[in-house]
Amino acid sequence: MRVLGIDPGLTRCGVGVVDGAPGAPLTLVRVGVVRTSPDDDLAARLLGIEQGIEELMDEVRPDAVAVERVFAQHNVSTVMGTAQAGAVAIVAAARRGLPVALHTPSEAKAAVTGSGRADKAQVTAMVTRLLRLDAPPRPADAADALALAICHLWRGGAQSRIEAARLAARSRMKGSSGR
Amino acid sequence: MRVLGIDPGLTRCGVGVVDGAPGAPLTLVRVGVVRTSPDDDLAARLLGIEQGIEELMDEVRPDAVAVERVFAQHNVSTVMGTAQAGAVAIVAAARRGLPVALHTPSEAKAAVTGSGRADKAQVTAMVTRLLRLDAPPRPADAADALALAICHLWRGGAQSRIEAARLAARSRMKGSSGR
Repeated sequence: MRVLGIDPGLTRCGVGVVDGAPGAPLTLVRVGVVRTSPDDDLAARLLGIEQGIEELMDEVRPDAVAVERVFAQHNVSTVMGTAQAGAVAIVAAARRGLPVALHTPSEAKAAVTGSGRADKAQVTAMVTRLLRLDAPPRPADAADALALAICHLWRGGAQSRIEAARLAARSRMKGSSGR
Repeated sequence: MRVLGIDPGLTRCGVGVVDGAPGAPLTLVRVGVVRTSPDDDLAARLLGIEQGIEELMDEVRPDAVAVERVFAQHNVSTVMGTAQAGAVAIVAAARRGLPVALHTPSEAKAAVTGSGRADKAQVTAMVTRLLRLDAPPRPADAADALALAICHLWRGGAQSRIEAARLAARSRMKGSSGR
């Protein structure tokens, strides 16, 4: 199973693709960041994020997408952009009929370190170890996207299959009405 | 000029389409609400909103789209859904190369009533009058989307044209690189 993890953000949107299955070794497929410029307006930035994620999905063909769940309690100045970037990622995946799961930062941290309150260094160290990499993944802030993908591989299986079946049914309904 | 106004929301996303130009009478083209069920998961809901807005844009072919600008200070329990629904609307329009403008609720109220603090009844009354309707538009909560469209027709002209030119230039660049 191939999972695309997305750590949404307007300026830097982390993306990480991991192959694996419960009980099997994990393999790093891709890691990176989709960037947009704060000088651009919101429409151009959201479009840039959509295009970056679409191109990545075209290339790696994930089986499922895991997006960080955003909470309104977080830093007010960035939370809106995070929610908007996340929405674009979610709908891009759903449009392809891919199952989309939302995991909290704590769930992702707990999946790779055993603790929902692990710090960034600990998450990066464990992601590096679990993916059997010689060095920490670069760019550094994409480690969270990899942790999300690993989290999903280890806990999201059953939930994803149900949702995929439901989205496929929806697509068929839409298709039969002429779209 | 034909403007699609969008008052974003996950459960009810108001849409209103108005024809007009500065100094000319306004004409109502379409008003409605794109609904999604709170029982569905977020991916299915965002996809439903995207499909509703795509279908509407296919039918009415707007020249510009005006979306309500969301502030993080608002009601925390609904603001995330509003931001997510808004992002889906914004990127759907930008994908077509349509200019997208964001107007605050105060700007929309001030455009149709003269006061940024007008209440719902006042906004509805003025939208009804400005569009020369025999009765208030239904559903009632779509009046805000119409106010947004009118606001944009009256103040957004110059800004929209610049942005349209920029998005068109972007599309050409993307096109030449093989997408």
